[in-house]
Amino acid sequence: MFITFEGPEGAGKSTLIRSLASELESLGHDVLTTREPGAGEFGQAIRSLLLHGDDLPATSEVFLFLADRSHHMVKIIQPALNEDRVVLCDRHAESTIVYQGYARGLDVELLRKMNLMATGNVRPDLIFLLDLPVEVGLSRIENKDRLDSEPIEFHQKVRDGFLAEREREPSRWHKIDATQAPQAILTEALGEIKKRLK
Amino acid sequence: MFITFEGPEGAGKSTLIRSLASELESLGHDVLTTREPGAGEFGQAIRSLLLHGDDLPATSEVFLFLADRSHHMVKIIQPALNEDRVVLCDRHAESTIVYQGYARGLDVELLRKMNLMATGNVRPDLIFLLDLPVEVGLSRIENKDRLDSEPIEFHQKVRDGFLAEREREPSRWHKIDATQAPQAILTEALGEIKKRLK
Repeated sequence: MFITFEGPEGAGKSTLIRSLASELESLGHDVLTTREPGAGEFGQAIRSLLLHGDDLPATSEVFLFLADRSHHMVKIIQPALNEDRVVLCDRHAESTIVYQGYARGLDVELLRKMNLMATGNVRPDLIFLLDLPVEVGLSRIENKDRLDSEPIEFHQKVRDGFLAEREREPSRWHKIDATQAPQAILTEALGEIKKRLK
Repeated sequence: MFITFEGPEGAGKSTLIRSLASELESLGHDVLTTREPGAGEFGQAIRSLLLHGDDLPATSEVFLFLADRSHHMVKIIQPALNEDRVVLCDRHAESTIVYQGYARGLDVELLRKMNLMATGNVRPDLIFLLDLPVEVGLSRIENKDRLDSEPIEFHQKVRDGFLAEREREPSRWHKIDATQAPQAILTEALGEIKKRLK
């Protein structure tokens, strides 16, 4: 089962993924936790180009994300799925649609095709959207990187974009109110996974 | 004027570009010579990922080329064109169509759209195809890299792909028989550029 976690920085994705991995392992599942961009050595090289390049064109940015996604799928995610592991991935294809499409204005339908090229047509079985008001998310971030420092309108487009993508495919997404306490978020997410693993 | 040079390794692209730059400068033109992948610091980082990664998925490869192309266009080629310089570029969008599309089998029409995204819809005014039989090209290469070491069928698809692309847009391309002596190639290319610069 391939599960991804989407939403803004500060929503609590990495905390949730750690807790879920631990719970799922105690239930006997073999779990792989990973993230985009930046899993593995190749991903780290891409991540450093993405985060430290000043003034990177939006199109260079999107192609770097896709190079990373493609490598990540072939070398890390697909082998784990082939071994029946549960894959928990922090950000995936939907972040590209929302950040580069909805928020930066690149062609969303072309981005969908590029995502399918990058993943060999593999898509997540379940996408968790950790949703929270823009101001709350931003106030939780301590060390802002290049993306976090975008103006508030950018972050509002990101939130609206995630909500719109969920509306397109409600059965693939599960939205969680990320202003809840971490334990409540974990309980809700674990319940949803157990329901779908049956 | 934006001029690109396509064809296999060993066809003499870099020799021709050096000679043309010198001739055009002596005629009073301001010339920029550049190449893909790998112009500038960002391009160098991409180039090292491309050439030294073992077993890189074809899709990662294509997205890295496009990240480089996008950066190259915004930061290097477009500023030079804005200053009325003549840009001579060793490989560009057509290499992606031919190597990743025709030869590696990725979706050619999707690659065309991705190229336009990467370049902001800018295309070369003139594309030189240095064409020669596959065996002749391969025999001229001394230090084979990852691409040069592909089987002969791959290189035949590359040659056929370039010829097919030229057939699609004959007015944008000028094919040169690259088995000729370097001086004859230079004379032919310079004549074509002068004709179009008028």
